[in-house]
Amino acid sequence: MKQAIIVGATGFGGLGLIEILLRHPRMAIKQLMARKDAGKSISAVYPHLQGFCDLTVGAPEDIDYSGIDIAFFSTPDRAGMTLIHEFHRRKIPVIDFSGDFRFSTAEDYAVYAKNRGLDPAHLAPELLPGTVYGLPEKYAESIRSARIVGNGGCFAICMELGLLPAVESGIVTSGTIYCDGKSGVSGAGKSSGEANLYPQRHENVNTYREGKHQHLVEVENVINTGGKSGFKILFVPQVLPLNRGILVTSYMEIRQGLDTAAILKIYRDYYRGKPFVLITESSPGTADVRGSNRCVIRPLVDERTGRLVVISVIDNLVKGQAGNAIQTANIMLGFDETAGLNLPAFYP
Amino acid sequence: MKQAIIVGATGFGGLGLIEILLRHPRMAIKQLMARKDAGKSISAVYPHLQGFCDLTVGAPEDIDYSGIDIAFFSTPDRAGMTLIHEFHRRKIPVIDFSGDFRFSTAEDYAVYAKNRGLDPAHLAPELLPGTVYGLPEKYAESIRSARIVGNGGCFAICMELGLLPAVESGIVTSGTIYCDGKSGVSGAGKSSGEANLYPQRHENVNTYREGKHQHLVEVENVINTGGKSGFKILFVPQVLPLNRGILVTSYMEIRQGLDTAAILKIYRDYYRGKPFVLITESSPGTADVRGSNRCVIRPLVDERTGRLVVISVIDNLVKGQAGNAIQTANIMLGFDETAGLNLPAFYP
Amino acid sequence: MKQAIIVGATGFGGLGLIEILLRHPRMAIKQLMARKDAGKSISAVYPHLQGFCDLTVGAPEDIDYSGIDIAFFSTPDRAGMTLIHEFHRRKIPVIDFSGDFRFSTAEDYAVYAKNRGLDPAHLAPELLPGTVYGLPEKYAESIRSARIVGNGGCFAICMELGLLPAVESGIVTSGTIYCDGKSGVSGAGKSSGEANLYPQRHENVNTYREGKHQHLVEVENVINTGGKSGFKILFVPQVLPLNRGILVTSYMEIRQGLDTAAILKIYRDYYRGKPFVLITESSPGTADVRGSNRCVIRPLVDERTGRLVVISVIDNLVKGQAGNAIQTANIMLGFDETAGLNLPAFYP
Amino acid sequence: MKQAIIVGATGFGGLGLIEILLRHPRMAIKQLMARKDAGKSISAVYPHLQGFCDLTVGAPEDIDYSGIDIAFFSTPDRAGMTLIHEFHRRKIPVIDFSGDFRFSTAEDYAVYAKNRGLDPAHLAPELLPGTVYGLPEKYAESIRSARIVGNGGCFAICMELGLLPAVESGIVTSGTIYCDGKSGVSGAGKSSGEANLYPQRHENVNTYREGKHQHLVEVENVINTGGKSGFKILFVPQVLPLNRGILVTSYMEIRQGLDTAAILKIYRDYYRGKPFVLITESSPGTADVRGSNRCVIRPLVDERTGRLVVISVIDNLVKGQAGNAIQTANIMLGFDETAGLNLPAFYP
Repeated sequence: MKQAIIVGATGFGGLGLIEILLRHPRMAIKQLMARKDAGKSISAVYPHLQGFCDLTVGAPEDIDYSGIDIAFFSTPDRAGMTLIHEFHRRKIPVIDFSGDFRFSTAEDYAVYAKNRGLDPAHLAPELLPGTVYGLPEKYAESIRSARIVGNGGCFAICMELGLLPAVESGIVTSGTIYCDGKSGVSGAGKSSGEANLYPQRHENVNTYREGKHQHLVEVENVINTGGKSGFKILFVPQVLPLNRGILVTSYMEIRQGLDTAAILKIYRDYYRGKPFVLITESSPGTADVRGSNRCVIRPLVDERTGRLVVISVIDNLVKGQAGNAIQTANIMLGFDETAGLNLPAFYP
Repeated sequence: MKQAIIVGATGFGGLGLIEILLRHPRMAIKQLMARKDAGKSISAVYPHLQGFCDLTVGAPEDIDYSGIDIAFFSTPDRAGMTLIHEFHRRKIPVIDFSGDFRFSTAEDYAVYAKNRGLDPAHLAPELLPGTVYGLPEKYAESIRSARIVGNGGCFAICMELGLLPAVESGIVTSGTIYCDGKSGVSGAGKSSGEANLYPQRHENVNTYREGKHQHLVEVENVINTGGKSGFKILFVPQVLPLNRGILVTSYMEIRQGLDTAAILKIYRDYYRGKPFVLITESSPGTADVRGSNRCVIRPLVDERTGRLVVISVIDNLVKGQAGNAIQTANIMLGFDETAGLNLPAFYP
Repeated sequence: MKQAIIVGATGFGGLGLIEILLRHPRMAIKQLMARKDAGKSISAVYPHLQGFCDLTVGAPEDIDYSGIDIAFFSTPDRAGMTLIHEFHRRKIPVIDFSGDFRFSTAEDYAVYAKNRGLDPAHLAPELLPGTVYGLPEKYAESIRSARIVGNGGCFAICMELGLLPAVESGIVTSGTIYCDGKSGVSGAGKSSGEANLYPQRHENVNTYREGKHQHLVEVENVINTGGKSGFKILFVPQVLPLNRGILVTSYMEIRQGLDTAAILKIYRDYYRGKPFVLITESSPGTADVRGSNRCVIRPLVDERTGRLVVISVIDNLVKGQAGNAIQTANIMLGFDETAGLNLPAFYP
Repeated sequence: MKQAIIVGATGFGGLGLIEILLRHPRMAIKQLMARKDAGKSISAVYPHLQGFCDLTVGAPEDIDYSGIDIAFFSTPDRAGMTLIHEFHRRKIPVIDFSGDFRFSTAEDYAVYAKNRGLDPAHLAPELLPGTVYGLPEKYAESIRSARIVGNGGCFAICMELGLLPAVESGIVTSGTIYCDGKSGVSGAGKSSGEANLYPQRHENVNTYREGKHQHLVEVENVINTGGKSGFKILFVPQVLPLNRGILVTSYMEIRQGLDTAAILKIYRDYYRGKPFVLITESSPGTADVRGSNRCVIRPLVDERTGRLVVISVIDNLVKGQAGNAIQTANIMLGFDETAGLNLPAFYP
């Protein structure tokens, strides 16, 4: 068994990792760290873990690096920038959940950071060129030998998987792609503020950060590195009364003469052999992927206008976060990509 | 007091009318008809009405036409086509909630009917040229003297109000406008089938009838009757775990050089004096309009792409149905447009 | 029009008052005060109020006492204890929403305060003997001439209305009455903490403060002042994934030989002429009262055990808070008890 | 691998079995039968199963009995009474999810059937004396050699596990025990009618079948077979806006002098070695058990009244149905009781 440490273990990202690692055949949890809950048992923070995982949460200062094979940073933005050095020195591979290591240049990071209202100066810029973006469906080869992976953002992963076959096949003719995103509330994390209290979210849907969401930078990076480049994304996110789930509906112009059957073939070819992407001809819903690491994608050509519509759904806490990270770790550690992740959705 | 009859009184549309008419200063309920619940008290069907409205529901055959000043048909598609004649003969104005009278030609009706899987042959085609589409913000003058009004569809009203200022001002340069729609479950009505059982809707969002929703025809009719014509709508609806509420996010290309401030001015000018449309600069949500007859609209220009985004929200059962019908009836009967409707949203 | 001031105007309690006062025929809003949001327009805090109420919220220090006919304190516990003096000196009647003035002795207050984790020392003990408990169905006569009314707690009102006919008629034979309470999340207020974030409440129900809820004291006070005394309440509250609504199921032993019909008669007699209590023979739900000031009560005798079950439902923000306060104010100001409150529930 | 057949495979009960069997180390799915969906792939009925289970659903007539080691009947009441004979003749053990085999006498069945509005005549009365009630925590020994097990009802299991330690230890002094039950909507099944449409359930909680729920008979049977007998249950169920989860709060009188610590010891002793029961000292919620086979129980003595309160929670579709059945099957087939079930809850 390989041994994992989770830093930032008591947020939803850390919890997602714990739940998957408890059933993982080749990876075990060695340490859980989190400043906020240091000293408590993890099962005091999450009572449903009693008897399954009762490790005491440690403070980040008390990390014991010996015997650790892989580290997951489920920490807030900028926390990993200082934590990373000792792991890197000891050659322990790291998968980071924040935006800290999703970019290979400090310039791209600065754009991300500004969108998010953060200090735009990166604290470990020398490490950025060696990082790999955590989207295994596209970067599996680089991930295999990576030491630092910046796990993709939840909305970003859903958009990228939906758009990649279209943009890389060269069929998209519009420079701007419209992405209309819908997310459950858990995407805001366990400690989000008053705006996410139950009465504010229940029986409500609203847009936010229209055109300015922080995941834009990484999506444009990822879709512009293959095939025709120069695409811009106009992304409007919406928050929905769901715990989990992201559905993105993307709209774009494509070359004339392509019907839905032709597009389906492009998508199926692109994702052949990718265990977590399912191309479908029926209307997808987030309930189809809840609790699973799957991304379900429906591309279709609107007959009246000739435009391409792509609907993609994921569970933001699994394929959008912890599941994607375990899939990435499986690749880094030489395991089967699906180890610990081979379960259908949880329904109803 | 003017006297109203509601045919199809026991669905959500009929209920919405009852709730508004109970507080209306100048219109009262004279008769409630509904085949399914004939013989029952309306407060046996809806216990919350006990003591407020306890009228017995009658069968449609038993309509007493005497003393009726206005009729609301909250009946399924095609029921009104046969009911209409006697009302029309007696010069009782009718507001119909289905798609039966939303079109002035039998050809347009046929397209609507096919999208909805209905018999495309209209049963009262001779009446169609004299009908008026029930969108008071655009057709108030015609409504004033109309005898038959086809109340707009809920999604349609939300799209139309969001798009009209842009298309009629001539700033939209793309032929196709993308409308991404999100609706609560009550839009499917009180007797919708297994797909709308609680476990199927709760913690789920999915698309449906992508590009083929039945409201497309009326929206294209309405937005193409003023200003530049020939716009097509690519509409993808989604159903959300809400009881009430519609949010539509629309995307389109516009003339260069227009910023958000310029667009806001166009929208504010267009809706000046319209009591139920509020133009806003913050992110709207369906909770802002729940239970009210308001439509809140936020237009904004995305700086990165220069495209126009318009977000519009309504309560599908109020501005999208019963409230819009009462507003229409107020105009037809010469009342203040806001009579019975002058209440803020119900929050939280 | 009588003029009202709302102190603590930007929480759910204050909002509830605003919404009712906007449609009240004889009372208007003169001032809104709230330390937290002082300086903002109320419609900046609650966008759905735009155009309906755009008053600027003032700081409590800036209260202008002139021309105020009635004051509502929708403030946290202990805030009213200091605010009250100037209102009392000027003979402005006050209805307080906290526990500060629900008790006529400092001893009872101390028990309440301890249950709630507050300082048990009352800061205006000399005023307590003159206060009246805000349950109009029982104390209308005293309320008519009261200067300080402590509006009942939401759970308390629902329990009291469900229990009073039984205990006062002398049919209850058990010393302990079991009350199993279920409440929506808005009962915790607009600024409740992390425990009430959407993901923690959605798809969850849990008990809390079992046997120790702070409303126990007032319920035992109210039910022990008439008929047979000495009843104790064992109350277990539960929080449910609802915005609004309280349902309490109460269980007790009664004299032999009484069937449901006999009990229904007792309940109907007790509440004859009370406009907001509805006795029913069907199963009540919170949707029957959402948005209304009604309490629906179903008493029934279980044939197998001979025990009495009483189910009572209210909207915690209306009959459990703002609606009950307006009903109380109507009585204090000599208006019809139902002024501004005569609306059915909001459904669905 | 032992081979299982699921009859009634396309309801929520069948789905629950499929999901667990897909991860079970020693049991596999051989056949899926369901009249309603015969001829379809199970993954056409439940798209989330695509790639995990794509078996074609067969009609009950087409059962192939060869090589079947165990049968699960997730069929409606009375369907199993005719299906059972051929399985019984071939000595294939059967676990039935309905009420058909929960009783060892036709008389008890008749009471159950009447409560549920069914024909009270059992069609296989000769088999009843040999059946075992499916509550492994109490009847593991009999289950080990049983051929027909009537899986307990979801509410019944939650009540029984909560009550057994108290009643069997002889500390309960009241003849009547009050059980206040709360259940999510999935308990009504996948094809429940109009009452369970989303708008009827969302933002609502109501009681139903007060004192007359069909699970009463089995609970009274189970709790009266050990220790002091003659207990009656007064059970009031409530349906909540949850997909999954049952919480039962039970109230009873106990011998004087027992405090919470003493009761906790009784409960911990009773369930020592039972892997799926967790006794807790904090307030349980259904989110603690969602998706898991656990029952979490909190017993506490109310200091003010000396009464015992027991709060018990389960996932109605797991410990209340499919999980309990797999646990039972594990025992019947000689596997570890936790095989396939050793996962924590799914949170959030």
